[in-house]
Amino acid sequence: MERSVLKFGGSSVSDFIKIKNIAGMLKQRVENGEQLIVVVSAMGKTTDQLMDNVSSLTTQPKEQELALLLTTGEQQTVSYMSMVLNDIGVNARAMTGYQAGIKTVGHHLKSRIAEINPETFNQAFEDNDVLVIAGFQGVNEDMEITTLGRGGSDTTAVALAASNNTPCEIYTDVDGVYATDPRVYKDAKRLEYVSYEEMMEMSALGAGVLETRSVELAHNYNIPLYLGRTLSNVKGTWIMSQTELLEKKAVTGVALDTHMMHVTISYPLPDDRLLTALFNKLEEGAVNVDMISQIVNLEGLQMSFTFKDTDAIQLTKILESLTEQFNALDFKINEDYVKISLIGSGMRDMSGVASKAFITLIENDIEFYQTTTSEISISCVIDADNGKRAVSALYQAFEI
Amino acid sequence: MERSVLKFGGSSVSDFIKIKNIAGMLKQRVENGEQLIVVVSAMGKTTDQLMDNVSSLTTQPKEQELALLLTTGEQQTVSYMSMVLNDIGVNARAMTGYQAGIKTVGHHLKSRIAEINPETFNQAFEDNDVLVIAGFQGVNEDMEITTLGRGGSDTTAVALAASNNTPCEIYTDVDGVYATDPRVYKDAKRLEYVSYEEMMEMSALGAGVLETRSVELAHNYNIPLYLGRTLSNVKGTWIMSQTELLEKKAVTGVALDTHMMHVTISYPLPDDRLLTALFNKLEEGAVNVDMISQIVNLEGLQMSFTFKDTDAIQLTKILESLTEQFNALDFKINEDYVKISLIGSGMRDMSGVASKAFITLIENDIEFYQTTTSEISISCVIDADNGKRAVSALYQAFEI
Repeated sequence: MERSVLKFGGSSVSDFIKIKNIAGMLKQRVENGEQLIVVVSAMGKTTDQLMDNVSSLTTQPKEQELALLLTTGEQQTVSYMSMVLNDIGVNARAMTGYQAGIKTVGHHLKSRIAEINPETFNQAFEDNDVLVIAGFQGVNEDMEITTLGRGGSDTTAVALAASNNTPCEIYTDVDGVYATDPRVYKDAKRLEYVSYEEMMEMSALGAGVLETRSVELAHNYNIPLYLGRTLSNVKGTWIMSQTELLEKKAVTGVALDTHMMHVTISYPLPDDRLLTALFNKLEEGAVNVDMISQIVNLEGLQMSFTFKDTDAIQLTKILESLTEQFNALDFKINEDYVKISLIGSGMRDMSGVASKAFITLIENDIEFYQTTTSEISISCVIDADNGKRAVSALYQAFEI
Repeated sequence: MERSVLKFGGSSVSDFIKIKNIAGMLKQRVENGEQLIVVVSAMGKTTDQLMDNVSSLTTQPKEQELALLLTTGEQQTVSYMSMVLNDIGVNARAMTGYQAGIKTVGHHLKSRIAEINPETFNQAFEDNDVLVIAGFQGVNEDMEITTLGRGGSDTTAVALAASNNTPCEIYTDVDGVYATDPRVYKDAKRLEYVSYEEMMEMSALGAGVLETRSVELAHNYNIPLYLGRTLSNVKGTWIMSQTELLEKKAVTGVALDTHMMHVTISYPLPDDRLLTALFNKLEEGAVNVDMISQIVNLEGLQMSFTFKDTDAIQLTKILESLTEQFNALDFKINEDYVKISLIGSGMRDMSGVASKAFITLIENDIEFYQTTTSEISISCVIDADNGKRAVSALYQAFEI
């Protein structure tokens, strides 16, 4: 029997009417002979409300307690969804992360999935046609509840698809993957297919539709990933292996990342102890560093890197604690930069893409401060004010 | 180190200010050298709100899903309580029912506790002074979440006290156990001590402060049980073994049960198949029958019994389904009765209590329809209209 994983985010299940409508659609698919694994997030703003409650109680909640609290959101959604399905005659069962056997390792609030036992699902499908699984959560080896961090429900869905060897459909409030953000460039076109690698670059570079880790996981297990709007007839985007895609273009997308910041650290002497201490603390605090550049000259050491704006408080704490040990350390955080990126699997085989991109920026008087290139992408840090104009210029220059 | 179990019901933890105040009190006790196991219910009306949501989705929720949903209430309370404790410098850890190792058997929504492993607690107390445990819930052998049904959090608390061999303090919104309901008889006095058996009779007979099963459990393990008002200086009531109580009176309390109904079933022939079918269905539906009387004469079979008003819908369903099989079956449910009971361990050794009770009712023109006696109680079914007058007359006649 054909089996699929479908994932619905918080805004797709924000009220009972939406839950009922989704249940109706699931019923049709069951009647067409499918077995469905349905992953849901917490309803609407539930997680935000729980976080607000926490803020009124303490500024430093323990990770265990926070994970325990936040996971109630998804536990409620799975209960409701399963009740509605049973009510309309679909044999369904609700399961929390640990009931579904989602074992995790690492930080309580940023856990990674270590293991899923597919036998759990084969057994549960003996009496059920739909299994409704709480996204974003698991259990660690100490039997403590954990959450998967940012975009966690997507990861749950892809991991379940991988362990059940099925495609994974992610339903959200966008119509699919666009060559660039339609809010930034109104003529942006929707892509029917995109390769895992291109999608990963787009996610990592701030396109923000899917977290990189879920696309990476799908890529590793070669799980076709669908991204589309909940209960919409508009055809979304399939994310799949490059080899299955026919058409190759140099550039398939332009991504603009506005959720980044930039920091410059200065120290009068080159000092390996400083760098070791810094990177140890960044790892401990799970702060991800993106583009790094380092200069050592007569004035000492100067290092710059970009990072996610959500890590700003954590990073500031880390740098402040370092100045206690290294008194001469100075740092400056700059919020007025954005990162613009060109993505395309075709770049591998075509030369001159980088040059053409830089020329386009220069011709448009857009200064760039730092650049990086990967096999299938080119990124530049530019002034936030120039973001929109840069997207438009590059989109047209590469005739996307 | 001294260890105690404290339980706080939903109204005691209905907002964050109350939770903070309780945390402050717990901190003092920890500073006095105690290890505390704290059992909490869902905050205020949370469970009712969840049930309202369910009603809007389906009339027949599956038990598994309902248990999964309802247990999120307590899971949230333990998270909050533990966060507040840690915030004020108390080492605390929150645990759900299954994390605390509360294994259950039976119906999902009316489960009974089968097993608790005290080692879980000894280990957790190595790093913590307070363990905050979700009441009302456990996990069955299929790893499914279950709830303990009515008064379930009290049962959780007593079972934890039994497995840790500690006293159990139950905090609620009453000052303790009264000789009769102060709302019915204003001069009712509060008891300092009461025996398990008397308390059980009072609970079973509708005094409604504590569910019978939790008192029974305390009795079986000889766990001293305290009942008092949350954060109050008023001294509550200790419920303990009869042998530890000095004073014995014939009657220590009068209970009035208004949450009962009465049914009369008629069938033209005595028929064992009917009775077998009836009691099987009552057991399946977990409907508890209280006082039963049966008459078989030339007109056939007539059976009456009393039951909890909350079981009325379930019982009606059962009787209706029986009329399909036994066409001549007739039944009539009467809601206008109450049950009045005298309770006292001293009854065992003193004669004439029943006679005196019946005479008191007759002298006050209070008709009684059915009576039962146990070793330490006498109960009569009377008209609801006479309830208050009967309490007053008996209270005075027995000089309680």
